[in-house]
Amino acid sequence: MSGATQFLHSRKPFAFRRGGSVAELTLAYETWGELDHNRSNAVMILTGISPSAHAASNSMDPTEGWWEPVIGPGRPIDTDSNFVICINSIGSCKGSTGPASINPATGKPYRLDFPELTIWDIAAAAQLVLNHLGIEQLRTMVGPSMGGMSGLAWLYQHPAGARHFLAVSSSAWAEPFSIAIRSLQREAIVTDPNWHDGNYTPESWPWTGMRLARKLGMITYRSAREWRKRFGRQPQTKYKPQVFGMNYKVEFYLENAARKFVVQYDPCAYVYLSRAMDWFNVADGHQSLTDALSHIELDSACIIGVDSDILFPLHQQRDIAEALAANEIDAELVALPSDQGHDSFLVDYDRFKPAIASYLQKVLEMESDRL
Amino acid sequence: MSGATQFLHSRKPFAFRRGGSVAELTLAYETWGELDHNRSNAVMILTGISPSAHAASNSMDPTEGWWEPVIGPGRPIDTDSNFVICINSIGSCKGSTGPASINPATGKPYRLDFPELTIWDIAAAAQLVLNHLGIEQLRTMVGPSMGGMSGLAWLYQHPAGARHFLAVSSSAWAEPFSIAIRSLQREAIVTDPNWHDGNYTPESWPWTGMRLARKLGMITYRSAREWRKRFGRQPQTKYKPQVFGMNYKVEFYLENAARKFVVQYDPCAYVYLSRAMDWFNVADGHQSLTDALSHIELDSACIIGVDSDILFPLHQQRDIAEALAANEIDAELVALPSDQGHDSFLVDYDRFKPAIASYLQKVLEMESDRL
Repeated sequence: MSGATQFLHSRKPFAFRRGGSVAELTLAYETWGELDHNRSNAVMILTGISPSAHAASNSMDPTEGWWEPVIGPGRPIDTDSNFVICINSIGSCKGSTGPASINPATGKPYRLDFPELTIWDIAAAAQLVLNHLGIEQLRTMVGPSMGGMSGLAWLYQHPAGARHFLAVSSSAWAEPFSIAIRSLQREAIVTDPNWHDGNYTPESWPWTGMRLARKLGMITYRSAREWRKRFGRQPQTKYKPQVFGMNYKVEFYLENAARKFVVQYDPCAYVYLSRAMDWFNVADGHQSLTDALSHIELDSACIIGVDSDILFPLHQQRDIAEALAANEIDAELVALPSDQGHDSFLVDYDRFKPAIASYLQKVLEMESDRL
Repeated sequence: MSGATQFLHSRKPFAFRRGGSVAELTLAYETWGELDHNRSNAVMILTGISPSAHAASNSMDPTEGWWEPVIGPGRPIDTDSNFVICINSIGSCKGSTGPASINPATGKPYRLDFPELTIWDIAAAAQLVLNHLGIEQLRTMVGPSMGGMSGLAWLYQHPAGARHFLAVSSSAWAEPFSIAIRSLQREAIVTDPNWHDGNYTPESWPWTGMRLARKLGMITYRSAREWRKRFGRQPQTKYKPQVFGMNYKVEFYLENAARKFVVQYDPCAYVYLSRAMDWFNVADGHQSLTDALSHIELDSACIIGVDSDILFPLHQQRDIAEALAANEIDAELVALPSDQGHDSFLVDYDRFKPAIASYLQKVLEMESDRL
């Protein structure tokens, strides 16, 4: 956990959308910048499946955050003019309560006793942090990847909760290709002989399943186009070749990603959050996405996507932008030609920094017009 | 095995390109139509990773073949005018010698004692069948998927071996995205606790690894575009939902594919053929693909591909067509807008039958001009 992480300890039961509750709840978050006197300059960032709340360095923790080039003084999410909050999702394992947390009733980790988690619960838990900070309306909700799903769910729950919305490489629902990928990742984990219905131990961890899941993840986080240029058919020589693999640089790359991930992420937290994405459809119970978003009151929205993203493909960002525009919200789709697929927002800063900066500059201009 | 399958039993040692040999070799093949008096109307089909030699029904075996609508009297590969041969690849488990075959020296299956297999070996073994049949030159070499790789390798080895070449959804080398997918499939199999360095038994089979590999295969054989239309977010109700999956129709579809595959294919044969594809680059040792193919003497070539194929993407077919054309071969690229990804040639017959028929009609016209 970052030294800058703050914790909201809620002693009230938190009820989950699909049933069940936890008796108490901890939410890990970090903030940057200052909340202005009328509490009107808050920007909330909800994250993808993996990141912690440490999105950027600050005075209490100078280590790089996961979106370091994007957040800070003079950066695209400018902490000179915005009070930025990043929340670790409920269900995750980076400080907020999730399946890996200790169940106070038993003194042991919840694991599969944790209630079924949905994106709607992530949104509802994030609201507790805003309540705690006394923020009634956000200037901007920011959601990359799964965070954009959570952001949409939160806007659905709080239609006047934000004046602006920035969604990055996200979607309004899970499509079958992404469901297939995530379902297979979860299957790899729960069929690992060390899974034991979630009762794995540090000595007997579902390493193999987690490794396979992470490698499959990386395959869908990046793009064939990037790898063609970056790896081609280059051999790898750093790891010992296996009988049936580890000959090529792309295999070395996946191996490194797997080795890092397997010690950084809790398998239960992973499958809970992964399943939550599959289940998500902000338009459930509505005739259309336009209908589902019709009660949302935003001054503007910017939906950024990347043409090489196979996990949250560009047409899904177009769907969101068009549905918001159909509701007469000033919504723009920004389609970037990045090579790095879904991960581009974490890598291709040459394209993402100007795109985000440009939209948040527009937000500031709209805000000053408003005052 | 099909009742129409013929077997070439070669008692001579067969040496593999990367070293090692087998003392004897069986090749399973089927034929359709009649070889003409000057043995000039032969069409050889080399297959993808899964199929047997039973590409189509015939009088000895009326069951449907894997390319039934394409091969037969009056069909695109017309058996009224062509003598068609389909060969089960060496290394496979559908009649030809492979890792699942009995090693005559031990009386047990070869498994990992089988020599390292390459696409070049598949091509060299196919030539034994042509020798056996007394065919000195093919009218047309036909290679879908891995079969196109084998076809290119064979043309490289036999530059005047065919007058025409039809490659379908294939490539001249493996790119890093496909390597990543196949490497992960193999890793899922060889990390299955039942793998035992290839010493699995019918009672203790690497079912889980094979299931995961097949599901990942299906994800890359079809396309997100097809699944969006075909499955959307439809639920499935036929299989019991699992804790972390089996909620959606796409998961049902993958499950069915996995259940079929795991009893139909030998795990060793699978990882051997899969690795062979990763290793393949017809341009190895050459400055360019054009250079690699410069000695090949074809009267024409047709390279068909599909824009939704992520495993053998369309630009790889374009590479082949351009390299052949640069060598002054009458080579055309046919890009089809099929939705079904790599598998389109097995499914989208509305597009594939006319495309194949049109090229093979052109071949017949060129052949009659020639005589």
